Amino acid sequence: MDFIIKGNILTSDPSRVTKIYPSSYLVIEKGKIKRIAQELTVEEKKLKLVDYHDCLILPGFLDLHVHAPQYTYRGMAMDADLLDWLKLYAFPEESKYHDIEYAKNAYALFVKGLRKSFSTRASVFGTLHKVADLELARQIEESGLVCNVGLVNMNRNCPDYLRETSTKAALKDTEDFILGCRNFAHVTPIITPRFTPTSSFDELEGLGKLREKYRLPVQSHLDETISEVAYVKELEPWSRHYTETYLKAGLMSKHFPTLMAHCIYNNDEEIELLKENNVTVAHCPCCNINVASGLAPIRKYLDKGILVGLGSDVAGGHTLSLFENGKTAIQVSKMYYRYIDSSCKPLTAQDAFYLATLGGENIFPDCGAFKEGYHADIIVIDDSKIESKGNFNLLERLERLFYLATEDMLVAKYVDGNSISLD
Amino acid sequence: MDFIIKGNILTSDPSRVTKIYPSSYLVIEKGKIKRIAQELTVEEKKLKLVDYHDCLILPGFLDLHVHAPQYTYRGMAMDADLLDWLKLYAFPEESKYHDIEYAKNAYALFVKGLRKSFSTRASVFGTLHKVADLELARQIEESGLVCNVGLVNMNRNCPDYLRETSTKAALKDTEDFILGCRNFAHVTPIITPRFTPTSSFDELEGLGKLREKYRLPVQSHLDETISEVAYVKELEPWSRHYTETYLKAGLMSKHFPTLMAHCIYNNDEEIELLKENNVTVAHCPCCNINVASGLAPIRKYLDKGILVGLGSDVAGGHTLSLFENGKTAIQVSKMYYRYIDSSCKPLTAQDAFYLATLGGENIFPDCGAFKEGYHADIIVIDDSKIESKGNFNLLERLERLFYLATEDMLVAKYVDGNSISLD
Repeated sequence: MDFIIKGNILTSDPSRVTKIYPSSYLVIEKGKIKRIAQELTVEEKKLKLVDYHDCLILPGFLDLHVHAPQYTYRGMAMDADLLDWLKLYAFPEESKYHDIEYAKNAYALFVKGLRKSFSTRASVFGTLHKVADLELARQIEESGLVCNVGLVNMNRNCPDYLRETSTKAALKDTEDFILGCRNFAHVTPIITPRFTPTSSFDELEGLGKLREKYRLPVQSHLDETISEVAYVKELEPWSRHYTETYLKAGLMSKHFPTLMAHCIYNNDEEIELLKENNVTVAHCPCCNINVASGLAPIRKYLDKGILVGLGSDVAGGHTLSLFENGKTAIQVSKMYYRYIDSSCKPLTAQDAFYLATLGGENIFPDCGAFKEGYHADIIVIDDSKIESKGNFNLLERLERLFYLATEDMLVAKYVDGNSISLD
Repeated sequence: MDFIIKGNILTSDPSRVTKIYPSSYLVIEKGKIKRIAQELTVEEKKLKLVDYHDCLILPGFLDLHVHAPQYTYRGMAMDADLLDWLKLYAFPEESKYHDIEYAKNAYALFVKGLRKSFSTRASVFGTLHKVADLELARQIEESGLVCNVGLVNMNRNCPDYLRETSTKAALKDTEDFILGCRNFAHVTPIITPRFTPTSSFDELEGLGKLREKYRLPVQSHLDETISEVAYVKELEPWSRHYTETYLKAGLMSKHFPTLMAHCIYNNDEEIELLKENNVTVAHCPCCNINVASGLAPIRKYLDKGILVGLGSDVAGGHTLSLFENGKTAIQVSKMYYRYIDSSCKPLTAQDAFYLATLGGENIFPDCGAFKEGYHADIIVIDDSKIESKGNFNLLERLERLFYLATEDMLVAKYVDGNSISLD
C-alpha cells in the first residue's frame, strides 16, 4: 500500500552526517521509500496520511549481533568473568533449546522483545538445535520483522551437553535449516560458526562450502578478548592470526556479506583484511564493557573506511536498545580517546546514528536510510515524555534519545511499509 | 504513623554484602525502621499492612551530586568538550535563574524528576541566585523529599553574566540563604563553592567561616580532569595540591560531613587526606565518561576504607537514575581493571547497591539501610515488567535492576515513612 508519514524526519548518509527535515512528508510506495517532501503532489495528496506531529521519524535500527536464546537472562551474571558466564549461564540456557516447547516459549519472549525494540532488522544467533532454530525463524516471519537467523555450529571446547554429536551430522542439520528457511520471506539463513575456539577447521571449511553452495552471508565472533586470540593461535598454530581461520575456510570475502562481532584486538594485518574483504564489524559496546573484554578502535575503523554497525549482543549486552548501545559506543570511544589513543576522536551522536542505521547496510542491503528505493523501515519516536524546558533543535533531540530513550517512547514501527505490533 | 510493608526486602551492610529477606515484613514506627520480621507480633498485626507481593523493597537511593539547574537540558551537548559544554550550555542556562519565574518553572521540572526517580535524598547544587535557591528549597520541602541544597559560589573564571558582583555580597547572600532554609524541615543548606577554579581563596576562607558559624556540611568538585588539576596549581601556586585549597580554607574535616564529587586524579597524598578527613567521594560514573574526564579508582578507595557513594551529576550525567549510574560504575570499573590497574577488581552489583545506599550515610546520617532507628526511606520496585523465563533469585533480580530498571517500575516511595507522589 502507498501512504505518507508526516513528522520530523532524520536520516544519516555515508559521510555520517545527519540530514534533518523538520515537519516533512515521507512518501512510501510499495513498501519502499519514494521520497522526502516538503510539499505533496496532487497525486500524493490522495494517499493515506499518518501525521505523527512533532515526533521524530527515523530509519529502523539494524541490530547486527544478538543471541536469541540468551534474551531470557539479560542483565544478570554480569559480575562473572566470561568463562564462568558461559559455563554457568549461556551454555546451560542454550542447551534447553533441544526441548521445542521450551524454545517456543522462550523465543516468543525474544521476538516480542525485538518487536518492541527500536530495531526493524537483526542478525540473530540461535543454538545448534535445528528444530528450535526453525521455530525461531517461523516466529520472526510471523512478527513482520526481517532477520538473518543462524543455526550455531560448535563441535569442540564446549560442554558435552551442548556439542554437535558429529561434524557431518551438524553440517547436515545446517543444510536442513537453510532449506527449511525457504518457507520464510522474512528470514535469511546465515552461516554461523560460534567462533573458531568452538569450531574445528574442518567444520569451518564445511560451512564455507555450504555458504558457497547456497550463496549465504556469514556471521561470527572475532578478536573479542586477549585470551581468546591466544587460544585460537594455540588451536590453529598454522594461522598467522585469528582472521585467517575464517578467511582460509571461505567464510570471509568481499563477494558476500560477512559480519564479525567485536573486533577489539585485531592486529594491523587483520584490520587490512577487514577492509579488503568488506567485512562489517558488529560493534557491541555494552557487551564489551559488561564482559570487560575491552575498548574497540571504532574511530580508527571508520577513518579507514571499514564498515561498522551496532550489535546489542544480548545477553553479553544487557539490552536490545540500540539507543543505549549507541550512547555506550560514544562513551567508550571517549575512554579510548582518553586512555589508548588521543588521535582517535570520540564518536558523536551523529556517528552513533550512522552506526545504528546505515552502518549495517552491507548486511541488510537498501536499509538504514530514507533514500529512494530503500526499504520503508521506519521508527517513530515521541520524545515529549522527556520533560524539559527550552526549544531544542532536531539534532539535540536526536542526541538526547541516545541518552534517555525508553521503549515506551516508540509509538510506531514499520518494516517494508507494514506496521509492526508493539504490544 | 506506624505501619508495615511486605515484600522481598534487600539492604546492604558496611561490608557491602547484600542481605536478603524474601517475602518479609518491614516494620515502620514513627517514620523510622523498627525491624525486619518473618513473623509479626500480635501488636504489629493490628497495624496497617501494605502488601507489595513479589516486589523488591530497597532503601531509598542517596544521590550525592546533582546540579538542579542543569536538569532541563540533560542528555544533550555530550559531544562538546567540557569547556564548550560549560560555555554553551551550563553557564547560559544557569544565568537564567536570576529570573524567579523561570526558576520556579524549571525547578518544578527538576523536583518532579527527583520525585519520580529512585532517590529519596539528594545533595543538590543550585545557582548563585539566592532567591531561586530558596525557591528550589521550598519546592523540595513541599515534595516530601529530603535534600542538601547549596547556593553556588563562584567569583572568578566564569562569564560576567554569571559571576558574583562582589565576594562580600556573595557571602552575605550565602548567609541569607542559610538563614532562609531555617523555614524548611526537609532542607539542609550546604556550603557549595562550585570549585577552586571559580572561587578565589579568600572566598573559600569566607565560606569556611560560614560553615563553622552554622555547623554545615560542604560539597564541591575535586580532581575531575587533568587540566583542572593543573589549572588549580596555577591559580593557587602555594598549594601542594588541589585538596589543600579546600583543607586550608576550613572546608574539609572529619568533624563535619564533606562531599567531593569525582576524585579521579587525586595523588597519593590527597587520597590519604580524603581518608583522614572522612571525606565522602561522590562517584559520578555517567558524567565521568560523558565528559571524557576519566576512570575513578573506586575499588582502591573502597579497599582503603574511604567513604564513597553515587552521584547522578545531572547534567554532565544524563540521568537521575542511580541504577543506571550503578551499572555504569560497574562497567567503568571493568575498564579500570582492564586498562589501568588489574589489581583493582571490578565492582559488583552488590558493591553498586552499597554505593547507591549506605555509601552516602555520612552525608545523610541514619539513611541507606533497613536498620533499627534508621529513616524509613523506601523504594518499591516491580520488576515483573522485565519479561523473562526462569526463576531468578533475589540477588539476580537486584543485579538486573541496575541494567534494566526504568522509572515506570517504581511503584512506591517513602521518605521518613511518608509516601511520595510519583505523578
